[in-house]
Amino acid sequence: MEGLVECSANYVPLSPISFLERAAFVYGDKASIIYGNTRYSWRETHGRCLRLASALSQMGLNRGEVACDNEVEIPCFWLRGKVAALAPNIPALYELYFGVPMAGAVFSALNTRLDAPMLALLLQELEAKIVCVDYQYLQIVLKALERIPAAKAKSLSLVVIRDSDQGAFSSTQEVPPDSLDYDRLLDMGKPDFEIASPIEECDPITVNYTSGSTGTPKGVVYSHRATYLNSIAQIFRFKMSTKPVFLWTLDMFHCSGWCFTWAVAALGGTNICLRNVTAKAIFDSISTHKVTLLCGAPTILNIIAEDPGPGHRPLPTKVDLVIAGALPPLEILNDVHKLGFNVSHAYGMTEALGPVTVRSLEFGQYDRASIIDRDGVHNLVMEGVDVKDPTTMTSAPADGKTVGEVMLRSNAMMLGYLKDVQGTQAAFKNGWYCTRDLGVRDPDGDIRIKDRAVDAIFNCVCVGGLGDAISTLEIEAVLASHPAVEAAAVVGRPDDRLGERPCAFVKLKEGCTTSSQDIIGFCAVKLPNYYYTVPGSVVFGDLPVNSNGKVQKFVLKEQAKDLGKTKSVG
Amino acid sequence: MEGLVECSANYVPLSPISFLERAAFVYGDKASIIYGNTRYSWRETHGRCLRLASALSQMGLNRGEVACDNEVEIPCFWLRGKVAALAPNIPALYELYFGVPMAGAVFSALNTRLDAPMLALLLQELEAKIVCVDYQYLQIVLKALERIPAAKAKSLSLVVIRDSDQGAFSSTQEVPPDSLDYDRLLDMGKPDFEIASPIEECDPITVNYTSGSTGTPKGVVYSHRATYLNSIAQIFRFKMSTKPVFLWTLDMFHCSGWCFTWAVAALGGTNICLRNVTAKAIFDSISTHKVTLLCGAPTILNIIAEDPGPGHRPLPTKVDLVIAGALPPLEILNDVHKLGFNVSHAYGMTEALGPVTVRSLEFGQYDRASIIDRDGVHNLVMEGVDVKDPTTMTSAPADGKTVGEVMLRSNAMMLGYLKDVQGTQAAFKNGWYCTRDLGVRDPDGDIRIKDRAVDAIFNCVCVGGLGDAISTLEIEAVLASHPAVEAAAVVGRPDDRLGERPCAFVKLKEGCTTSSQDIIGFCAVKLPNYYYTVPGSVVFGDLPVNSNGKVQKFVLKEQAKDLGKTKSVG
Repeated sequence: MEGLVECSANYVPLSPISFLERAAFVYGDKASIIYGNTRYSWRETHGRCLRLASALSQMGLNRGEVACDNEVEIPCFWLRGKVAALAPNIPALYELYFGVPMAGAVFSALNTRLDAPMLALLLQELEAKIVCVDYQYLQIVLKALERIPAAKAKSLSLVVIRDSDQGAFSSTQEVPPDSLDYDRLLDMGKPDFEIASPIEECDPITVNYTSGSTGTPKGVVYSHRATYLNSIAQIFRFKMSTKPVFLWTLDMFHCSGWCFTWAVAALGGTNICLRNVTAKAIFDSISTHKVTLLCGAPTILNIIAEDPGPGHRPLPTKVDLVIAGALPPLEILNDVHKLGFNVSHAYGMTEALGPVTVRSLEFGQYDRASIIDRDGVHNLVMEGVDVKDPTTMTSAPADGKTVGEVMLRSNAMMLGYLKDVQGTQAAFKNGWYCTRDLGVRDPDGDIRIKDRAVDAIFNCVCVGGLGDAISTLEIEAVLASHPAVEAAAVVGRPDDRLGERPCAFVKLKEGCTTSSQDIIGFCAVKLPNYYYTVPGSVVFGDLPVNSNGKVQKFVLKEQAKDLGKTKSVG
Repeated sequence: MEGLVECSANYVPLSPISFLERAAFVYGDKASIIYGNTRYSWRETHGRCLRLASALSQMGLNRGEVACDNEVEIPCFWLRGKVAALAPNIPALYELYFGVPMAGAVFSALNTRLDAPMLALLLQELEAKIVCVDYQYLQIVLKALERIPAAKAKSLSLVVIRDSDQGAFSSTQEVPPDSLDYDRLLDMGKPDFEIASPIEECDPITVNYTSGSTGTPKGVVYSHRATYLNSIAQIFRFKMSTKPVFLWTLDMFHCSGWCFTWAVAALGGTNICLRNVTAKAIFDSISTHKVTLLCGAPTILNIIAEDPGPGHRPLPTKVDLVIAGALPPLEILNDVHKLGFNVSHAYGMTEALGPVTVRSLEFGQYDRASIIDRDGVHNLVMEGVDVKDPTTMTSAPADGKTVGEVMLRSNAMMLGYLKDVQGTQAAFKNGWYCTRDLGVRDPDGDIRIKDRAVDAIFNCVCVGGLGDAISTLEIEAVLASHPAVEAAAVVGRPDDRLGERPCAFVKLKEGCTTSSQDIIGFCAVKLPNYYYTVPGSVVFGDLPVNSNGKVQKFVLKEQAKDLGKTKSVG
């Protein structure tokens, strides 16, 4: 239609960088970050990030590696170089989430629990030009660099974060002579740096490694557009207050901190940073800073429940606590509820930028099955959610029984796996993101997750496809409700008649004893179709977990195979 | 970077249509629209809009006018045809805001206060293929059609909305034999219609005519992307509750109902539709449906204040009331405050999709100058706001004095003026949207609107550019605080020494009398630099207003010119 144009007045590529610029203007004097005795305002954080971006550019991150269109005079300088970091939840890491994209570069915060060989692998895959490392992780990074071919390692600049606030950096600690100091780096930067906004809103902003529960961690790439839209979605999904006080108990390196890095800036909220997540730090932060929200792995519940500290009941304010991952035993949840926390459970995955849905766990009432309620999953940026047969792509009927694969369509979705064309194609098969989670559609519209596709147990009574997969999650939920059980995991074990039959690995609570017969009998009463679903065998002992505390089922599957076939009575 | 893709799994063009699809899934049973005895759920509204879209497609709105790329198999059928409507705030008009875009067409709701010649002009400019008209406006549309060349009028289909709920349509009312009935149209539609989602998110969705206070109304074109993002921005800007009950006192044809059409669907809220906006209807709706928000022109305050009805104090719930346009006299505002309404004032323009900022008017306290506070104007989708010299494009210093033009950059911005290349270019000069409002930047970051650029008075003491423009808004604010004044408008009148000098047009309250000397003396005490800013002359009488109740200053400027030059004592 004549008279219509797209120009900088009416089209600006979506980027979470804009949240920081806005926060500096609108909430300039408000506290952006509080960390020990360090306190920044949004104006200061904006200024620091500008200087960081400026300094990074000076370090050779200046763009020009991709040809620019000289006919339209855009300051076109797209950078392929990446900046990696290894640090706890300290202000510097928060600043990198803005400063690196503001320099036009891509940021990747790595898991601080990785070992040197894995770090070396990921740094090479990333082709990181700069690595920012907190003093606490300097030695492991140096070990990783030793494993990288000299030529590559040489072109990599090291920036050391000394963290003057927490003061644990010892002046005697050896630092490579050619490394830079993070604070000096900022001093190098110019406060009037012109932000290198993305040319296209689908340009990448971060690379986020999965925890690698099924193998090597995968580098999941997020775009400016996806993180902008998901930051706004987080506000709705977590029912965030207009002025949130966010306590960083969630690893900031995990899924770009679930986009809370940027969402808190969007609202002009306050970030409470923590080097070490302890019960004391949590309760002190809540009482001092009036924390409104904290998140993390289920272990956060144990930390809170085991050491609530004196005089902390009731909490001074309502505090939302959102956990992702397997649900811990009921009694810990109830303990944390009683302390005054409003606990919710998130379902999601790194590929979908973290949590897809959040549901409140009502005290004493919640259903332990993993339900994705309609309201939650179909949030504002979710364009489609369905349970489909992965072969025919037909939708499962809403009968609460027919198992299919949960599939998503969303603007809050990864661009793909870094350097893994096949992996990306498999994940986006048929124009949907395939979660590899098995689920059913309930008549009321809810979707219930039954199991990870790779973990579900199929036996000879399963009729074609995914039809009658046995959900290990459901069996685990029953096991976890047994009074003597601290944690449990179920995998398939070969069976002479059924092909495969559930095998339970159970960790008992300290001082508790029980028998296989007791566990099997307990399950038989609570599980439907017990002949097929009740574990045929029980193994007692510790459960193998990965760096994020997730049970490594692939290890248990090997153990179950080694046990040999169970014998089913026909 | 290798491994990254854009496909339907991770990139879906932003469109507010998705809000309705989501509402049908998530809030299926919740009330979407309440209108008299009519009540729809979101599932029903979704179904009705699907059938509407299907029927419109059958009526010849099927696309194919633009070549499609057959190599990628997209259901490519972009429609240039448009659907116009003339109706009050009834459910059918709400449905058209979804149903027309769902058919891939562009919608334009026209001002119901237009006369037949203007309607004829706009229908031709739009090249509307279908006109949906409420029975109440059938005669004026028929008159307009008589003015359209026969060949064009013949290709235009007429759909008559009989509105069975309010029952005022008389069976004896003559309806053109070849017209269609809206309800029959829906019966024609198929409920399994496949939505024609936009191919590009910047495709147009609606054409919104300005009120034409300075001439012929301009057709302002909105995109799917802009309306999607602005719908979300409205939720933040208006601090909408999670389950809003929105009372339609704002004209739904005005700026696509400020995007509330779509924003209410985004939250799964409830729309309370009204054929006639009366005090009784407002108070009945508030007490029956627990209205949370209503908006409109300042006249809404008069309607409420003049007839609050018995037994309506206090209101059963907190009700937000947002008005846009000139502020009415203080005492009416205070009356409405006392009734329990939380009144706010919006600043915006059709080009920026309606309100840009909303500020609360604290009871008895508010400053009558038009302040855009930082928080408000720099909302989540606002990418830039500045006060600039329109010639040099340099920013005005934040000194609270230097006058410049308020300029915006936003994804919630029009695509341009329909068929007006020059107008669009002028509006988007230098990559910013030029509001034509004069303003200053305060040291604290606030931006204050001084006047419309065309209304400000410049005299010989004004030094270059916009430097010392006299704000007619400021003088009007003082006049409105005079106890005998009901309404006032100020324009420039030629002056023998100053070049131009303020001339006040004043409408007195019924039964009140005063003199020019009194008015001038009143202003002299309250205005700074009174020699230049105090009106040199006062004219008593009614003020000319346009169809939206806005004072037509261009009429007053002619009158002032006709009065001849004032004589200033040197």
